[in-house]
Amino acid sequence: MREETESLLTKSTKLRVRYGETDQMGYCYYGNYAQYFEVGRVEALRSLGMSYRELENMGVMLPVSDYHVKYKVPAKYDDELRIVTHIKSIAGARITFDYEIYNETDRLIATATTTLVFVDKTSMRPSKPPSAFMALFDE
Amino acid sequence: MREETESLLTKSTKLRVRYGETDQMGYCYYGNYAQYFEVGRVEALRSLGMSYRELENMGVMLPVSDYHVKYKVPAKYDDELRIVTHIKSIAGARITFDYEIYNETDRLIATATTTLVFVDKTSMRPSKPPSAFMALFDE
Amino acid sequence: MREETESLLTKSTKLRVRYGETDQMGYCYYGNYAQYFEVGRVEALRSLGMSYRELENMGVMLPVSDYHVKYKVPAKYDDELRIVTHIKSIAGARITFDYEIYNETDRLIATATTTLVFVDKTSMRPSKPPSAFMALFDE
Amino acid sequence: MREETESLLTKSTKLRVRYGETDQMGYCYYGNYAQYFEVGRVEALRSLGMSYRELENMGVMLPVSDYHVKYKVPAKYDDELRIVTHIKSIAGARITFDYEIYNETDRLIATATTTLVFVDKTSMRPSKPPSAFMALFDE
Repeated sequence: MREETESLLTKSTKLRVRYGETDQMGYCYYGNYAQYFEVGRVEALRSLGMSYRELENMGVMLPVSDYHVKYKVPAKYDDELRIVTHIKSIAGARITFDYEIYNETDRLIATATTTLVFVDKTSMRPSKPPSAFMALFDE
Repeated sequence: MREETESLLTKSTKLRVRYGETDQMGYCYYGNYAQYFEVGRVEALRSLGMSYRELENMGVMLPVSDYHVKYKVPAKYDDELRIVTHIKSIAGARITFDYEIYNETDRLIATATTTLVFVDKTSMRPSKPPSAFMALFDE
Repeated sequence: MREETESLLTKSTKLRVRYGETDQMGYCYYGNYAQYFEVGRVEALRSLGMSYRELENMGVMLPVSDYHVKYKVPAKYDDELRIVTHIKSIAGARITFDYEIYNETDRLIATATTTLVFVDKTSMRPSKPPSAFMALFDE
Repeated sequence: MREETESLLTKSTKLRVRYGETDQMGYCYYGNYAQYFEVGRVEALRSLGMSYRELENMGVMLPVSDYHVKYKVPAKYDDELRIVTHIKSIAGARITFDYEIYNETDRLIATATTTLVFVDKTSMRPSKPPSAFMALFDE
């Protein structure tokens, strides 16, 4: 999953593990990473020049179709995490993001991949990304 | 908050504390109770004869405007909780629910009150409850 | 992922999608499925004769090391979901669960696999499952 | 709840509403504000010179005993919220925080109060705050 291939875009974002995100093992609960990756891809899109909110306003939704995460080292309460997000590919109606999460001592906490599908809100069917979105990659 | 006044309806529901709902104190995180009270009032409405989903399909939303919870005893992982929900009053566009949560040994875990507002989805303004909803209390 | 191989145990559990688990697409948020699979495996262990709480009390933790989920059809608010959980294998310190989620009309909503690691709470190192746990499979 | 009395400390923190925190009304789910207030008070403590993590490491837990929130205006996806946290009082084993949340256009979104109890991890009983904590207010 981690081979060093090219990305269309790479963006780094920081966030802190909240108390409510820990579990009684004292770890960040495994289900909460999904929100961290969502923050990562939202900030990746914003840095590209189009917020996810704008995409939705253009009549497009982006549900996740596939999500795979490998947990290497536990994240703990109050850890400041660095989420590195890569837009790996856009093919047809699908967009794939890869992620790494690092803690404050630069240890790799987790890696993940998500595939999302551009869905037209009116037809509720997969559709190509809006051309305004694709144009962002030409620049 | 707990004086024994009459309710329009009382409904009891059970659920278990999930692992992901605990925090590193080993308690159910204080923020997760809001979902438990939501489950309580949804099941109260269903027992009355109208699901919250049906209410939304009738063009009505029910956002919470006020929420007050007192935590007495921690709920722990895997505890089977009993949520007792009371519809206390419906006045104008407002509906008020009271709740108690008990654990398996019948200890009172928490009490709460929520006030929700009937909002018309089209106008996005507070509105009286649908007459089909109010009719359920006449029976 | 779905080839029909044997399981050590299969257990079916039901739960309802909570309002707080939906997102503004009107779907159950992709991150919330992790809690559903946790409920599935907890109930699978309970049906086997040992609760996850008992395992922890025996000095064992079970963090997730790998989680892969495929979202087929959106789960919606108030859907009653059926989570089918399979214990697929136990090898060394690792235990692998497979899952399918079906909605009320028996449509396949999602499939997933998680691998968890038995960790000794004292040494904080991977360890073989407790013999009391392994004995449950001999019966 | 909002009378302008003095605070022992006031601290402002920003965060964005995550997609997974919205619900199908398109609002930030009412239960998720609890995490925002937690972030607010954690950052208030940090600005005071002692992180909540350090407090726990000193053998102290701070469970919430009372939480009251008034929702004025819905927070929406991707809104950048400003959480203003006030330490209102410390009396015996109790510490009370007040909060206001504002959106990007400086509209008041919600107000809240939480009371937390200093609990000694060993005895599991309410206890006075550590003297190292109280000393922070003398400076």
